[in-house]
Amino acid sequence: MLRLAPMKRKQLSLEELKEGVLAGNRVILSRAITLCESQRPQDIAKADELLQAILPHTSNSLRIGITGVPGVGKSTFIESFGELITEKGKRLAVLTIDPSSQKTKGSILGDKTRMEELSRNPNAFIRPSASGSALGGVGYKTREVMLLCEAAGFDVIIVETVGVGQSETLVHGMVDFFLLLMLAGAGDELQGIKKGIMEMAHGLVINKADGENIRPAKRAKAEYQSALHLFPMEPSGWLPQVKTCSSMEKSGLEEVWQMILDYEIKLKGNGHFQLNREAQQVSWFKSNIQLLLEGGFYQSEETKKKLPELLKSVEAGEVHALKAAHDLVDSFLNK
Amino acid sequence: MLRLAPMKRKQLSLEELKEGVLAGNRVILSRAITLCESQRPQDIAKADELLQAILPHTSNSLRIGITGVPGVGKSTFIESFGELITEKGKRLAVLTIDPSSQKTKGSILGDKTRMEELSRNPNAFIRPSASGSALGGVGYKTREVMLLCEAAGFDVIIVETVGVGQSETLVHGMVDFFLLLMLAGAGDELQGIKKGIMEMAHGLVINKADGENIRPAKRAKAEYQSALHLFPMEPSGWLPQVKTCSSMEKSGLEEVWQMILDYEIKLKGNGHFQLNREAQQVSWFKSNIQLLLEGGFYQSEETKKKLPELLKSVEAGEVHALKAAHDLVDSFLNK
Repeated sequence: MLRLAPMKRKQLSLEELKEGVLAGNRVILSRAITLCESQRPQDIAKADELLQAILPHTSNSLRIGITGVPGVGKSTFIESFGELITEKGKRLAVLTIDPSSQKTKGSILGDKTRMEELSRNPNAFIRPSASGSALGGVGYKTREVMLLCEAAGFDVIIVETVGVGQSETLVHGMVDFFLLLMLAGAGDELQGIKKGIMEMAHGLVINKADGENIRPAKRAKAEYQSALHLFPMEPSGWLPQVKTCSSMEKSGLEEVWQMILDYEIKLKGNGHFQLNREAQQVSWFKSNIQLLLEGGFYQSEETKKKLPELLKSVEAGEVHALKAAHDLVDSFLNK
Repeated sequence: MLRLAPMKRKQLSLEELKEGVLAGNRVILSRAITLCESQRPQDIAKADELLQAILPHTSNSLRIGITGVPGVGKSTFIESFGELITEKGKRLAVLTIDPSSQKTKGSILGDKTRMEELSRNPNAFIRPSASGSALGGVGYKTREVMLLCEAAGFDVIIVETVGVGQSETLVHGMVDFFLLLMLAGAGDELQGIKKGIMEMAHGLVINKADGENIRPAKRAKAEYQSALHLFPMEPSGWLPQVKTCSSMEKSGLEEVWQMILDYEIKLKGNGHFQLNREAQQVSWFKSNIQLLLEGGFYQSEETKKKLPELLKSVEAGEVHALKAAHDLVDSFLNK
């Protein structure tokens, strides 16, 4: 990627980056994103400054999180749904978080080519997240990338994640609307979804509702809608909706978009849209504090030396977890 | 409480505490718990040693978490259910976590008197948690208290919490079986329950199924049972059960107990009981590291001075959360 040949590229100044991003220049936006994802100390400081500089130009997009197990058809859905959004005159950025890429590396590059049509759309911008941050957070910089995209004038940001790990909670904490993509089949399709994710969703969309699947999809829709009535209500008063769609046949997508707009109107009306964003800001701040503290701790030489053995003893129940933590942390903080 | 007159009491040695706890001496158990809940540095060190000493005598109980919104009848349920458990020849400890006591102080003392009959039962031990720990964790020491109770020979530990805050996730992370107590009324009763808690439950029990409530309770049971089929399955293969009971009429409690035993047998059979405990140990260790790091950070003079204003700016979107966190944490770690 860009970093393979850093010497050939002219370093952009903070001002050039800021102006380029605000002008919606995609090349500069990409370089700004790479800067934010970098872990070199000088880049981190520069990225912090850049983000602070563009901050007044952010927050003006509609942020949508989309999750679902592999096989549910996320890419095809985003491809079709993204076309619809751009047809409405909106500029769309799609950010993908793929925790599996931490292990396999480079699988995100494979993912990038999935949404072929959308990637050729002049009003869409697709960017896979560089995950595997040393600070331990899956998709650690996705929120920052989102802010950069907003400053670059994108009206709708889709953050895509796989519903099998920890990244959903992170994504839920950075978007306005959280959409869970599913297949019909009464339960089976959820085997891979982590517990608790279903309750976080503002909307469930049953995909592949075409051909012989239309009937089971409708039945699943009714079942889920009645199950959702049993769930605790959002403080905002929003009752999660269930929709069916076919990404292949491009049917039902209008209704999904309308559901998201209804949500936006309702929550902007009762103030919960803004309240939610403020709460997200604060909890993001606190998460960053936590990640940075833990980053410092887990990267310290002493921790690296002692932790693996200690973890085994704790797991086996030989060492008391609180005492083990006290010993390690005290020694770190008083170093 | 005890600390009001510390001078009058002879300090017990580590050995005396250990022997007293292992002998099941309730007075010494209570003092050991108070020691573990203390925040004085010398007490913390002594408590760590005590817990390490009793560790080989722990883990042999069945740990049950019980949650539900105020008004659902938790105390009455635990009173009746606790009697049943002791009638089976089991020794029962009930630990209560009441986050509200952080604000009102002393409300836990009021709670303590709720379970009057059970508190006179020679095979039951009731202990409200001293919450409001400076380290920020609601019920921070509940897990340690649980270990002490196990070392003192209790066969069943019930951890009670109110289903409206963060304590449920903590409790879910320290028990074998997590029970959600509800009332009939199709959804309304869950308004106070936090999202995600329902999906964590291994069993839902609809309380107050007596008189005119029997019909609605049965209907609610059927609705929830069918909704739970739509949820993601536990890795253990356990499908959450729904039961009805009346704590007043003491009906249905046998079935609740049987459900918990079925769960225990199933999970001990397929190895998930032990796997779950090991995972809990490790995540408890990591949570302790996090709490201790954050404790050190949030209690530092500089943080206390700068944080309130910074929080406001972050909430208002004036300061970038990541930069703000970097500044504060760097300055803390390099002090």
